[in-house]
Amino acid sequence: MELREIQKVVDEWVKQNNGYWKPNNIILRLMEETGELAREINHKYGEKPAKPDEKEGDIGQEAADVFFTLMCLLNSLDIDLEDKFKKVMEKYSIRDKNRHSI
Amino acid sequence: MELREIQKVVDEWVKQNNGYWKPNNIILRLMEETGELAREINHKYGEKPAKPDEKEGDIGQEAADVFFTLMCLLNSLDIDLEDKFKKVMEKYSIRDKNRHSI
Amino acid sequence: MELREIQKVVDEWVKQNNGYWKPNNIILRLMEETGELAREINHKYGEKPAKPDEKEGDIGQEAADVFFTLMCLLNSLDIDLEDKFKKVMEKYSIRDKNRHSI
Amino acid sequence: MELREIQKVVDEWVKQNNGYWKPNNIILRLMEETGELAREINHKYGEKPAKPDEKEGDIGQEAADVFFTLMCLLNSLDIDLEDKFKKVMEKYSIRDKNRHSI
Repeated sequence: MELREIQKVVDEWVKQNNGYWKPNNIILRLMEETGELAREINHKYGEKPAKPDEKEGDIGQEAADVFFTLMCLLNSLDIDLEDKFKKVMEKYSIRDKNRHSI
Repeated sequence: MELREIQKVVDEWVKQNNGYWKPNNIILRLMEETGELAREINHKYGEKPAKPDEKEGDIGQEAADVFFTLMCLLNSLDIDLEDKFKKVMEKYSIRDKNRHSI
Repeated sequence: MELREIQKVVDEWVKQNNGYWKPNNIILRLMEETGELAREINHKYGEKPAKPDEKEGDIGQEAADVFFTLMCLLNSLDIDLEDKFKKVMEKYSIRDKNRHSI
Repeated sequence: MELREIQKVVDEWVKQNNGYWKPNNIILRLMEETGELAREINHKYGEKPAKPDEKEGDIGQEAADVFFTLMCLLNSLDIDLEDKFKKVMEKYSIRDKNRHSI
């Protein structure tokens, strides 16, 4: 799928489900979803034991929840992620020529 | 751009820049980038005043940093985001038929 | 209670419960707890509706979970929070004489 | 210092500096401060290299910024942290009798 198509799919879904929250509230959701992703990473690669009644989570699915929430934030502000992504890649390519990175 | 192409662009960039960190460390970076995004949202839509010497940030660019970091995490774990995104949309479509959402 | 006594209570508890995680993993827990706090704030002051089967959370208790996790991090690194808190208050008192703040 | 005295010191400082933000905005600040703490942890214990012009940060001070912001949130909602902390310790003592923990 094209990234722009994804933004559109999310947009259609949100508009059929009562519309966008304010940016301040969408980012609270982003924080919540990022926290859930951190929990799964900690279970699988860190030291957090799962509770006995907890089924194993899915890192990919938690990451997709983070991604979905990010799309909501960007859509609500009319920001095209592909455009911004290209700018970030330019920035990184210049900045990091001579140093380590992620 | 296709989402899969984006994952590949990020992958090539990372491999030319010393490779992936461990998931536990990539998510620390995700936390840092998410915090920077929260700061920009707070400046623009919340109550945080910019410091006098601070130039206005760019919410879209901070969001793209979050997105880039998320791509790194997923690539390092060989997870295809498009596949997970589709699953999330299915989950949301079923779960939220009868209630509000983001 | 004295803040130092609290650090000690947490320390005793942790030592009876298998000891401290590495800082990288404690902060994943901090992220998770902060996300849960964000969720409660969003429920009560934002736009997130509670799921029908979800009981109302307690912002204070989520905040105390964040606090507890922060104590774990500081204890594991032998950092005295009272000392650092005093330094922060000095920093804020100087920096913010002439501008708005939280 | 007593924890309650700390909450009061923060309260006096905030009231002399234009008062509390709304909870939704204070938590954006908490996210930002938590992100800065994550960055320092990543520098020191993870894989993130410092930029050449970046001075070494202070984990304790970043943690105290998180703590200060948490105090602001609690004060703004009239929540006594000592009380909530005691409840958390009770909860943990019961829940974790038979399993690993942080």
